[in-house]
Amino acid sequence: MSGKLGILAGGGELPRRLIKLCQDTGRDFFVVAFKGQTDNETVMDVEHLWSRLGAAGDIISRLKKEQVTDLIMIGPVKRPSMAELRPDWRALQFFAKIGAKSLGDDGLLKSVVSALETEGFNLLGIDDILHDLLATKEIYGKFSPDAQAQTDIKRGVEVARLMGLADVGQSVVVQQGLVLGIEAIEGTDALIDRCAGLRRDAAGGVLVKLKKPQQERRADLPTIGIETVKRAVKSGLRGIAIEAGGALVVDRDAVVQLANESGLFLIGIEPADYD
Amino acid sequence: MSGKLGILAGGGELPRRLIKLCQDTGRDFFVVAFKGQTDNETVMDVEHLWSRLGAAGDIISRLKKEQVTDLIMIGPVKRPSMAELRPDWRALQFFAKIGAKSLGDDGLLKSVVSALETEGFNLLGIDDILHDLLATKEIYGKFSPDAQAQTDIKRGVEVARLMGLADVGQSVVVQQGLVLGIEAIEGTDALIDRCAGLRRDAAGGVLVKLKKPQQERRADLPTIGIETVKRAVKSGLRGIAIEAGGALVVDRDAVVQLANESGLFLIGIEPADYD
Repeated sequence: MSGKLGILAGGGELPRRLIKLCQDTGRDFFVVAFKGQTDNETVMDVEHLWSRLGAAGDIISRLKKEQVTDLIMIGPVKRPSMAELRPDWRALQFFAKIGAKSLGDDGLLKSVVSALETEGFNLLGIDDILHDLLATKEIYGKFSPDAQAQTDIKRGVEVARLMGLADVGQSVVVQQGLVLGIEAIEGTDALIDRCAGLRRDAAGGVLVKLKKPQQERRADLPTIGIETVKRAVKSGLRGIAIEAGGALVVDRDAVVQLANESGLFLIGIEPADYD
Repeated sequence: MSGKLGILAGGGELPRRLIKLCQDTGRDFFVVAFKGQTDNETVMDVEHLWSRLGAAGDIISRLKKEQVTDLIMIGPVKRPSMAELRPDWRALQFFAKIGAKSLGDDGLLKSVVSALETEGFNLLGIDDILHDLLATKEIYGKFSPDAQAQTDIKRGVEVARLMGLADVGQSVVVQQGLVLGIEAIEGTDALIDRCAGLRRDAAGGVLVKLKKPQQERRADLPTIGIETVKRAVKSGLRGIAIEAGGALVVDRDAVVQLANESGLFLIGIEPADYD
């Protein structure tokens, strides 16, 4: 049996899924919940600490007191401004070391991972524990992209990669060669929703969701689930392309069933195939 | 006096401003209005043709019949899908020649410009006629960006440039190093509006608006005016940075007055200064 697992819980239901797995398998764990990020129900019946994101000193000393050995970051975390973050002394030292340049999503998360490793924790990725979540290169369900959809995926891959270089966004919606929307900080759900009003009168668009080229696998992977498919259908999209090995599919069976019922394709792609 | 001017009129009030100038200076002109793009009031009292965007054959033969020698594209044109475009035979030949690859905004517009030049027309840029619209490198009004705002402009320039390479978007909103939003097809107004709900609890963000690196000056330049400033203020932004020589400021005096009254800075920048 592995050591005690510290769960740094972001929003959504992924943290609860992991907690459930720990309970089912009898693995010891301790949850750090973040104000304004983690759902209340995630920590209702488990040992936990509520903390500000900026309270690095408190968090680290509590994790050590709880004799946590392994750490995992799971669930999306909304990026706060420095003012909201209110970093404590320990966090300030950390920011001073990494510099303001690292405030891009990925730079920051990479630095957090390496700082926690320096403190002696063993950092795990979600897919180290929830093995079957990671997207593979395949067509999920019974619908496939046609030639126009493949062209749209190619365009989406091109744009998403450039966005990745700038360390922003992972998601792009393309319809008939037109880039309808690009994700920044608003999140994929909001991106999909606004594309409902931007779509052209033609076969629907495609959501392309990649991990950033330099993304730290253990910090944050793009995730899709039932909610993503529901919104995509509502916004008139006809497909979703995610990066094989670089995105998580939560509730695979339910996702595939809904996609099939809705006439939506879901495909795991290797971006390099679209060069 | 120059030859007869053909005005390919997009949306908004810029085409009307140009028509007014032609009337005031006694220059002959003929307006092509596009369904779903041009405002009705733009062509109410002037000689014009209503056309689909895709009816290239009709447009070119009418322009020749009207003995138009110079052409100008003015005012934003929403990109249609191929299905909406319904290209005629002449337009299809055109698309066959340039290939589907050119459906990025700028690629398409460049090809349109060169096709019209092949037909013997002299293509003008807005700033060839409306000289004082082009943004210059200066601080407009009485407010200047502080150090944080300059850092945000730098980040915005970096992201906008990468977007330009992908031939999408020209506008980015950055607050405290966070990229709140990136413009795709929705337009700058919609980008600004949605950033109201994304802003962090701290000093407001900055709208950075550049022309794309390879942008055809005569096809479409980013434009700001009173409406842009109003929306920026409403969304809690504290400044706007536009590219000197690469953006238009419509109604300069009114824009500066509103910015001053609202505590907003407006600055014309050379992107290279932020490398």
